[in-house]
Amino acid sequence: MSIRIGIYGYGNLGRGVERAIRQNPDMTAVGVFTRRDPQSVKTCTGIPVFSADDAEKMTNEIDVMILCGGSATDLPKQTPALAARFNVVDSFDTHAKIPEHVQNVQAAAEKAGKTALVSGGWDPGMFSLARLYGTAVLTEGKEYTFWGKGVSQGHSDAIRRIEGVVDAKQYTIPIQSALQKVRNGENPDLKTDEKHERECYVVAAEGADKARIEREIKTMPNYFADYKTTVHFITLEELREKHSGLPHGGEVIRSGVTGENGEHKHVIEYSLKLDSNAEFTASVLVACARAVYRMNQEGNVGCKTLFDIPPAYLSAKSRDELLATLL
Amino acid sequence: MSIRIGIYGYGNLGRGVERAIRQNPDMTAVGVFTRRDPQSVKTCTGIPVFSADDAEKMTNEIDVMILCGGSATDLPKQTPALAARFNVVDSFDTHAKIPEHVQNVQAAAEKAGKTALVSGGWDPGMFSLARLYGTAVLTEGKEYTFWGKGVSQGHSDAIRRIEGVVDAKQYTIPIQSALQKVRNGENPDLKTDEKHERECYVVAAEGADKARIEREIKTMPNYFADYKTTVHFITLEELREKHSGLPHGGEVIRSGVTGENGEHKHVIEYSLKLDSNAEFTASVLVACARAVYRMNQEGNVGCKTLFDIPPAYLSAKSRDELLATLL
Repeated sequence: MSIRIGIYGYGNLGRGVERAIRQNPDMTAVGVFTRRDPQSVKTCTGIPVFSADDAEKMTNEIDVMILCGGSATDLPKQTPALAARFNVVDSFDTHAKIPEHVQNVQAAAEKAGKTALVSGGWDPGMFSLARLYGTAVLTEGKEYTFWGKGVSQGHSDAIRRIEGVVDAKQYTIPIQSALQKVRNGENPDLKTDEKHERECYVVAAEGADKARIEREIKTMPNYFADYKTTVHFITLEELREKHSGLPHGGEVIRSGVTGENGEHKHVIEYSLKLDSNAEFTASVLVACARAVYRMNQEGNVGCKTLFDIPPAYLSAKSRDELLATLL
Repeated sequence: MSIRIGIYGYGNLGRGVERAIRQNPDMTAVGVFTRRDPQSVKTCTGIPVFSADDAEKMTNEIDVMILCGGSATDLPKQTPALAARFNVVDSFDTHAKIPEHVQNVQAAAEKAGKTALVSGGWDPGMFSLARLYGTAVLTEGKEYTFWGKGVSQGHSDAIRRIEGVVDAKQYTIPIQSALQKVRNGENPDLKTDEKHERECYVVAAEGADKARIEREIKTMPNYFADYKTTVHFITLEELREKHSGLPHGGEVIRSGVTGENGEHKHVIEYSLKLDSNAEFTASVLVACARAVYRMNQEGNVGCKTLFDIPPAYLSAKSRDELLATLL
């Protein structure tokens, strides 16, 4: 019997979920739920489109609803609301607000006898797992997260708001010398701006003052001022041709010691190189949906994170197969 | 309240467990259990030594017994036997026999209401987790395990058995060009001997025929014949000085695709660089003991592997702390 998935919200992430479901034969996409006019939305694989308002009529047709909205305004409201009717999965990624989000979703899901998994994806998500396993095993040590090379949408948007900028793309790039020190087990103290540099590809309007634009970028507080920032002016054609993707990735490194006097160093590194940030995130959410479905079948309700999920629950393979082939 | 740990078997791994417990303030080492004369064993941190035969009298004083024997002959018997009286953790690493071992331990632990975790460590163990998470998330893809650079005890022993060899150390080394192809997402087909080469440091007896020794190493079936093998003859002093450690490590790489037609590549890499194979393995086992203790407290009995353990159970941190700091 196939696990029936609803997709709530249909941007890059929603499309990624739709495609990921096709790569998981034990799942079926029931349809997309949108706040737009359903007639105006065409899905990638031809699955039906429903109005978001109609979701509540379909509680018997959906085993898990995957929420594909944004963390700023959508998910804080949508996840608790939908957890009152569905098993749900989301990718809530405002790290500082995760405890509050978990609490809100817990209350709704527990009351309804539903199972929710929040903050799935890769950071939070797979990176969080790497951090947890790393600290649990190497209790004396330091932990580092590097992001990139990847596109930061927030930073790209910030550049686009500057006068005279037609379009822009910003890549966050780990500083290789810092990364190497960490990999060597040197345990340096590093602030975020000592771990990353920022590379900007900017299309300026005809006649715009490029020197001013570059200065405004490089001095922008929080976004760029503290970082080594490089600005390249390119044509709109080049931007579209070479910088249209949304790659991302990064490394979580745990460096620690063992022995009589900490004389043995150990370095654990978890790294991701992703051509499509949204599609990889979607692939994680789909695996989480499987786990949520199984936990709910077993009566394990409430709000979970990847920290609470026995890894085997994420896989379509049977326990016997896992033991024989992957352990 | 501290989790009280017994250490059953006292070689490199047992000593590693003893030291790892000192790095985990929520645990106490009750003592070492040995089949040797307890009087003849001196522990690193001064914890008591008991006869293995006396373990059964101490069931009320030990929350989890960590078994530190070998997979060939010790653990197949010891783990089921001790699981009938204790919560247990082992590092059984004969991959092909894991399903059988799980079955034997399951029967004993379930009957006794005890919780067991088998095949903890890094391979099987942390590498198995990397394989499972990787395949669960990227369902269309290929998976690779590279080992090294690290000392293979089995291969070192095989060299030592050759006539005229005084001592030897063998390093397994990933072939960088193969590793690079995998990291690039090229998904090559690679046999074990296409992924690894073997480097041997050999001390020959005075007057021994080095050419013959080198030939015997390089043509040894299973161990070396299929591999690119390099032999260095060195002095005993140099061997002791430069090759006395037992470092190891390796990489698990999952390379997969997503998108409409698999147009987006993704590479997940989990890598370990370990100064001390035994001490890192021990650190994993100690984290597993915490999880086993908690699961048993909750009435979750039987034989588990890391695939069955919610990651949070491995950490000494509270759930609130985990959500706030690591997710």
